[in-house]
Amino acid sequence: MAGFSISPVSDGVVVAELDRGPENLWTLADLRELTALLTSPPEGAHVLRVRSVGEAFCLGRERGGTSTAPGVVRGEAETLVAVTRAFRNTRLVTVAEVQGDAAGFGVGVLAACDVAVGVADARIFFPEVGIGLAPALVLAWLPRKIGERQAFWLTATGEKITAARATELGLLNAVVGSAEELRKDVDERVALLRARSPRVHADIRDMLRAFGAVGDDQALDMSIDRLVVGSLRRGET
Amino acid sequence: MAGFSISPVSDGVVVAELDRGPENLWTLADLRELTALLTSPPEGAHVLRVRSVGEAFCLGRERGGTSTAPGVVRGEAETLVAVTRAFRNTRLVTVAEVQGDAAGFGVGVLAACDVAVGVADARIFFPEVGIGLAPALVLAWLPRKIGERQAFWLTATGEKITAARATELGLLNAVVGSAEELRKDVDERVALLRARSPRVHADIRDMLRAFGAVGDDQALDMSIDRLVVGSLRRGET
Amino acid sequence: MAGFSISPVSDGVVVAELDRGPENLWTLADLRELTALLTSPPEGAHVLRVRSVGEAFCLGRERGGTSTAPGVVRGEAETLVAVTRAFRNTRLVTVAEVQGDAAGFGVGVLAACDVAVGVADARIFFPEVGIGLAPALVLAWLPRKIGERQAFWLTATGEKITAARATELGLLNAVVGSAEELRKDVDERVALLRARSPRVHADIRDMLRAFGAVGDDQALDMSIDRLVVGSLRRGET
Repeated sequence: MAGFSISPVSDGVVVAELDRGPENLWTLADLRELTALLTSPPEGAHVLRVRSVGEAFCLGRERGGTSTAPGVVRGEAETLVAVTRAFRNTRLVTVAEVQGDAAGFGVGVLAACDVAVGVADARIFFPEVGIGLAPALVLAWLPRKIGERQAFWLTATGEKITAARATELGLLNAVVGSAEELRKDVDERVALLRARSPRVHADIRDMLRAFGAVGDDQALDMSIDRLVVGSLRRGET
Repeated sequence: MAGFSISPVSDGVVVAELDRGPENLWTLADLRELTALLTSPPEGAHVLRVRSVGEAFCLGRERGGTSTAPGVVRGEAETLVAVTRAFRNTRLVTVAEVQGDAAGFGVGVLAACDVAVGVADARIFFPEVGIGLAPALVLAWLPRKIGERQAFWLTATGEKITAARATELGLLNAVVGSAEELRKDVDERVALLRARSPRVHADIRDMLRAFGAVGDDQALDMSIDRLVVGSLRRGET
Repeated sequence: MAGFSISPVSDGVVVAELDRGPENLWTLADLRELTALLTSPPEGAHVLRVRSVGEAFCLGRERGGTSTAPGVVRGEAETLVAVTRAFRNTRLVTVAEVQGDAAGFGVGVLAACDVAVGVADARIFFPEVGIGLAPALVLAWLPRKIGERQAFWLTATGEKITAARATELGLLNAVVGSAEELRKDVDERVALLRARSPRVHADIRDMLRAFGAVGDDQALDMSIDRLVVGSLRRGET
């Protein structure tokens, strides 16, 4: 079904699928729906697959027409940040299937997923400089993932990189040859994840977030309490 | 000699050797002994080689039986964190010889060493998810070394990676073909280190720790004092 | 012209060229001139090319004779930190052409540039340990770029690495075969940069600095304001 759709839970897996034509731009309504899903997942959901129908994975988000009213622009920015933050805070394990080009906020979505696999002919790029914008949201996360040198070059020039290069840089877990291999590879990864405990996965995600926000020494201190609590909770499912 | 042994200092080098059967699990007593060595090294010690006898480098630490009394569990957690911290604070240069598989806390030890080399057929993995645990101590250091994406995947699935992949990810300095090459490679690295000043090495380790705990700008400020003090101390051995 | 020279602005580009014999050591006066250029660039300047004439790119900075008076030593340290900081704060886009070996503070200059390309036979190293010094300023930035493990090894041993390895580690954007290819490659990169807005580039550099100084969550918060301001300023050149 064209547009943005969210599947029912099946064997612990939810599928969020974008089907909005050749550019697969997210609408703000889509992003609010995705945020709600991440924030309040349905009962029994463990893994969320994020995928797209068509040529592009996602070339960004639909720009709000020609309005430059500060209130409108701010509302858009807040929606983009909210979904980025929801990916960080969700208890779901998120997996992106990157079957085609990803640009701007579309790269933000795959980078926000816990796991991301791309097809070899997908291109990754940040086109904002071409329309006179520094991509502020991209710059809030990209240098932490790939380093300042690469983040500067990609955002300052808009250069397109291959999925293979994106994998080297750590934006993707792996690159595969074709859309068919992509589906198969992600099926296998989801099976590996489903064989493990959703509770442990939620704990891992929670610790990544908590330890990432503090220094090395404090992370070590915090790990003591987590070790104790984890050991005592092992009986739970 | 089976068990855990610490050699006398010879030409500035101490060897800590683990020989505890097929899994080479650290006991808590071993770890306390290792912590004491790192915290108060013997006179004249410059480099510590950490190595193992047998098939595995180290598959973790001995679990404290079936006790889940919070006090016991906390004591174990504190011992693990203490040795991790002792590796950070020691004035010794630490070198790990990874002759076989490393898992869980065993990976923590090699990652904590300043230098680590592995044989090609060694496998590195985090098996805790298989026993219903999020590896809290691992998550306190792993994402800082290899990034959140890789840290999530390895701890969420328990997937085993090769020493070559661990080298790409920055967990090892290098990978070699065989146990014989490993000994030779580490001998050469120790010789390179021994040709340099123990005092300068201790200063480098101290600055890595001090500058790592602060932001970019503050690290630059702090470097001024360190430059001055270092220049004035050059005459010392 | 031998010594250190700064070209007039031509098509938005300034060239800073070092020509100080076989080692191409920066003098403190050169560094103060470079700091002034970065801090107060001439009207119309967008890109700064930093390059050298001769065999070496730069093997460091001229040591202040035999003076070890604390005041002199501190003044030197402050000058080195000032130019490092000026690279971070300038509104120019900085591009290093590394046509030969780089050592110590010479590596600091190329690493501080937004873009850096090296020829294959250039060697990168930190020789300070050989004269009984821990390179404090290097240690303030190097581990943030290449990780603590690599930073320790390179500063503790003085080992020379190839430009190819430096590219893998993220110190260079790319490596090319010869001095001729280097000039051509950098010409092309400068053309790509010149095709984009100097204002957007200054914004990108400013955000990299601002977001890098805070945690993940705060960077997301800050990006909202930046997105709004950026959208409203798109009309400007």
